[in-house]
Amino acid sequence: MSQPFTITRRVEFGDTDMAGIMHFSNFFRFMEVAETAFLRSHGLTVSWTEGGQSYGFPRVSTACDFQRPLRFEDEVTIAVSVEKIGKKSISYKFTFTLAGQPIAEGLMSSVYCRKSGGVLESLDIPPDLRAKLEA
Amino acid sequence: MSQPFTITRRVEFGDTDMAGIMHFSNFFRFMEVAETAFLRSHGLTVSWTEGGQSYGFPRVSTACDFQRPLRFEDEVTIAVSVEKIGKKSISYKFTFTLAGQPIAEGLMSSVYCRKSGGVLESLDIPPDLRAKLEA
Amino acid sequence: MSQPFTITRRVEFGDTDMAGIMHFSNFFRFMEVAETAFLRSHGLTVSWTEGGQSYGFPRVSTACDFQRPLRFEDEVTIAVSVEKIGKKSISYKFTFTLAGQPIAEGLMSSVYCRKSGGVLESLDIPPDLRAKLEA
Amino acid sequence: MSQPFTITRRVEFGDTDMAGIMHFSNFFRFMEVAETAFLRSHGLTVSWTEGGQSYGFPRVSTACDFQRPLRFEDEVTIAVSVEKIGKKSISYKFTFTLAGQPIAEGLMSSVYCRKSGGVLESLDIPPDLRAKLEA
Repeated sequence: MSQPFTITRRVEFGDTDMAGIMHFSNFFRFMEVAETAFLRSHGLTVSWTEGGQSYGFPRVSTACDFQRPLRFEDEVTIAVSVEKIGKKSISYKFTFTLAGQPIAEGLMSSVYCRKSGGVLESLDIPPDLRAKLEA
Repeated sequence: MSQPFTITRRVEFGDTDMAGIMHFSNFFRFMEVAETAFLRSHGLTVSWTEGGQSYGFPRVSTACDFQRPLRFEDEVTIAVSVEKIGKKSISYKFTFTLAGQPIAEGLMSSVYCRKSGGVLESLDIPPDLRAKLEA
Repeated sequence: MSQPFTITRRVEFGDTDMAGIMHFSNFFRFMEVAETAFLRSHGLTVSWTEGGQSYGFPRVSTACDFQRPLRFEDEVTIAVSVEKIGKKSISYKFTFTLAGQPIAEGLMSSVYCRKSGGVLESLDIPPDLRAKLEA
Repeated sequence: MSQPFTITRRVEFGDTDMAGIMHFSNFFRFMEVAETAFLRSHGLTVSWTEGGQSYGFPRVSTACDFQRPLRFEDEVTIAVSVEKIGKKSISYKFTFTLAGQPIAEGLMSSVYCRKSGGVLESLDIPPDLRAKLEA
């Protein structure tokens, strides 16, 4: 649906675990860094307040397949593609590569929500927000 | 394949994010806590050294569907079931509930590996290890 | 000033780093777990909403001396003592031990604050809150 | 002792907590990012293997004073100065600023160690390593 948007991120010492590789949970942290950079590049963000109300894109599902490990000081490239913009949700695909070699593939689906009194309520993505996401 | 093995874990302040809920990446940290508790209860662990060599169960794929958010101080119950023990891999299912309400469902597949000179090599799960996992 | 309040916590796989020991930043996460458990045992919490306003105890300074490393599956004991309750702040001392051996010593000072429009404002600790902390 | 070495780092969504600010433990993660970037700029690293043995700079003490909070998407500047290179240890000072405003000040002392059979042994910093640190 869109050309991939790309970031790079270095694996920090604190991202590793005793197996000497990046802890698997940090692939999701890295996906989020790529997702928020993508949104920022479209003039958007992942959590904001407007007219006294909180809006955001909480995740409803995510997955990752790990092909090769990452190590301390690796500078991984993460490509973000929008797979689908639905009525209320957006789905991203993330491709991790290191020096051209495949590392991991991730998926994430987020739903457009308003937070009222601590409760998350999903909403239709409004036209102006959709236009920015599709830009 | 097996009766669920169950743990509880409290959501800590540092597990939350600015949306006021547990950060989604921490569901994978919690799955790991449940996975290692499950292995421990079978006399096993997730990463060990034997005869001067390192062995372990690095994850090859994982996924999570989020149904309801968790908040600071929630004490979530995580049930672990072994979905499949293959030739080289083991697949787990994780069910998160809070006071009986469904919160999230996760999957994780780990491959039995030996680490030689920084390289991970997948191996057939040996009979004694398989027997412990199936116990 | 007070008898130590004690918790135990297991080092999880994801708490370790490539040096094979608990990552030093997680000692602060563990201090927080002990601090919030201490507050909970006094009927208090670290961040709450009252009359439509947010209150809490953000940290203004913290420190830790590391004597011995912690490893995966270690069950560390953390003793919390209140060092001082000042006009607006509270200072804690944390002592980490493993099977009686000293592991680390930490300090943390938190200031009682109200959050108004995203701005943190320090306040005098009110008498009822002070009474609970000193209980 | 040295001119400050400077990096910038953006606060990610996953670095925040339910108080809407960067979780205090992440200041230590950010210090480490600055420390390892400093070492890298001197041709060094924080954990390495040489002649079949593991060496590194585990931290023996660290502290941080928090002056102002950081929020999601803030791009904080972290200046690293070497305070002292002792016989076996190195001490750093970290100054966090945002658009020129003071945010936090941190300290960290690391000891040069060899890891033999899972045990950390402190050593005198050898002349070639000292020369690189002082470069």
